[in-house]
Amino acid sequence: MTAADPLLLTPGPLTTSPSVRQAMLRDWGSRDPRFIALTAEIRARLVALAGGEGSHVCVPLQGSGTFAVEAMLTTFVPRRGKVLVLINGAYGERMRRQCALAGRAIATIETAEDEPPDPAALSARLAADPAVTHVAAVHCETTTGILNPIEAIAEVTARHGRRLLIDSMSGFGALPIDARRVRYDALAASSNKCLQGVPGLGFVLCRKAALATAAGNAGSLSLDLYDQAAGFDADGQWRFTPPTHVVAALAAALDELDAEGGIAGRHRRYAENCRILREGMEALGFVPLLPAAVQAPIIVTFRMPRNPRFVFERFYEGLAARGFVIYPGKLTRAPSFRIGCIGAVGAAEMRAVVAAVGRQLDEMGVSL
Amino acid sequence: MTAADPLLLTPGPLTTSPSVRQAMLRDWGSRDPRFIALTAEIRARLVALAGGEGSHVCVPLQGSGTFAVEAMLTTFVPRRGKVLVLINGAYGERMRRQCALAGRAIATIETAEDEPPDPAALSARLAADPAVTHVAAVHCETTTGILNPIEAIAEVTARHGRRLLIDSMSGFGALPIDARRVRYDALAASSNKCLQGVPGLGFVLCRKAALATAAGNAGSLSLDLYDQAAGFDADGQWRFTPPTHVVAALAAALDELDAEGGIAGRHRRYAENCRILREGMEALGFVPLLPAAVQAPIIVTFRMPRNPRFVFERFYEGLAARGFVIYPGKLTRAPSFRIGCIGAVGAAEMRAVVAAVGRQLDEMGVSL
Repeated sequence: MTAADPLLLTPGPLTTSPSVRQAMLRDWGSRDPRFIALTAEIRARLVALAGGEGSHVCVPLQGSGTFAVEAMLTTFVPRRGKVLVLINGAYGERMRRQCALAGRAIATIETAEDEPPDPAALSARLAADPAVTHVAAVHCETTTGILNPIEAIAEVTARHGRRLLIDSMSGFGALPIDARRVRYDALAASSNKCLQGVPGLGFVLCRKAALATAAGNAGSLSLDLYDQAAGFDADGQWRFTPPTHVVAALAAALDELDAEGGIAGRHRRYAENCRILREGMEALGFVPLLPAAVQAPIIVTFRMPRNPRFVFERFYEGLAARGFVIYPGKLTRAPSFRIGCIGAVGAAEMRAVVAAVGRQLDEMGVSL
Repeated sequence: MTAADPLLLTPGPLTTSPSVRQAMLRDWGSRDPRFIALTAEIRARLVALAGGEGSHVCVPLQGSGTFAVEAMLTTFVPRRGKVLVLINGAYGERMRRQCALAGRAIATIETAEDEPPDPAALSARLAADPAVTHVAAVHCETTTGILNPIEAIAEVTARHGRRLLIDSMSGFGALPIDARRVRYDALAASSNKCLQGVPGLGFVLCRKAALATAAGNAGSLSLDLYDQAAGFDADGQWRFTPPTHVVAALAAALDELDAEGGIAGRHRRYAENCRILREGMEALGFVPLLPAAVQAPIIVTFRMPRNPRFVFERFYEGLAARGFVIYPGKLTRAPSFRIGCIGAVGAAEMRAVVAAVGRQLDEMGVSL
């Protein structure tokens, strides 16, 4: 690690392994049988990771994770549907905005950014509003790193006979979610969060029966998951040029996930990363925004110190010079900053960043 | 070059240089000041390549080129606008479909796939239909490789006081088009055609004055170029996670374009590639679909030989085994196949593919 090649402790893009990056050293013909086979392999492996064999299909989509979420919302919610969006951060709010732009009817349940949505409140709202066809929820709300109770949300939604759409962008691959137990119509995620690929590719795990009824909903060619899936069904090819190098990197990243013991193994490492980071930062005097009980092991938000010598820009650049790039800025309402604990990093790197934070505080003359 | 690492002679993804691929070996923090600077540099260089300094701004967009085209059409054509789409292949037809899905009023001028649109017919249509606000045209229609008369189209469109939107996906970077002489409101292109980057990124060169009036048109968050540009204006950051490695590869690719003498230098090499390919294939008995006068030096379409021993799948796989991946299948109405002449390939590679085609014909017992 050099100053020119720092470690990323951000919620994605994140630090990838050398072998994932080296998988990008080959050019692939996107309509060549060998790339068609690679695409099919990745789609099948993602379905298997989700526990969706038989019931679900994986539809990858070019672009950022936000594109995949918008494609999910507009493909699955029919023009005359109504979405109840659970909001406790920027990503729930973004789903609300996407649904509004698409002209879908919307309801919301908003909770504070350090407060998970309450399944009982969801149940009451669904009982009171029979027009709601879909519930949209964020699994780990990256704004704070809060873990939302997705299993309870799914149970309530199913009990009321409504359909669930999940943004698990920053959770899939590390947070357990099994389609055999958690009922959803669609779940959107990305190549470059907990799967530890590089950015440029999202994907949506789609309940086959739901996708089959979604023709013509999307109102866009690029973001139409029904049409995208139909393209794969026809000849195994992507409708439009895929980011071939990013796809190849994802295949390598899935190999590493398998080698680590799958989602359970990765969750263990991230949980340990998170524990070291939280405890180390607390020992230095920082205060996490979230109580440990709702902290997902993805990214940790710390309250901004009130000490006037703690100038965040100087803190950020000092850490970058020491080889650690953290998230530069906040999404929360509360003054805060964030450090990620996902990617190709382990206990040694988390201890190293805590040590670097300590040295940076010393250099800034800050005692917390 | 090995069997595992063939040369791509396709219209993108195409063969990139080792240094372009090696630029992907570093992880970048997408909100880090160093990546913000890289993004600004690329945007400025693309504007300069287009001759758009002062008048135009470059708005890059995650995803495939088709996403950039759809973003261009929906951002620039207002809800109550009307688009006249010039169609002589699959990409013009795709623009028509995108406009229809977005609910825009549409008119079309269709010509045969080997026939460029006629500027006089365009003029007559614009005179007859004052409701048309925008003309949408493809620069090089990759379906056949035909060069459409974009300068004359721009002149007619401007003379009638209408606005021009150009799909120059497969042309920009090699086909000359200078915003100081060719008037357009927007031009969409991609990282991985003539610029010789890797796929995963499109961009739209936008006339600033036109973009400034485009707020609220798009009907989508992901594909809204006005909002995307506003994000860059605010803090230099991408609104949503960019494909950082693809962006870094594009920066390296732009260095190589400069070293080659810019668009003029690249055009010279591609024209020579095209000449060698056409003449070599003609000497073997193949017949190009297009007359040389309208052949863009991007991809060459050959009529499918009628010889019953010429089985295309065997031809394709034989060439792949010899280290050359061509486009597997046709987009034209006429039975045909295509070989690209763009990418990090030169005269030696074009002579080599012609020789490989000759050997493959021998192996198949085909004499044309």
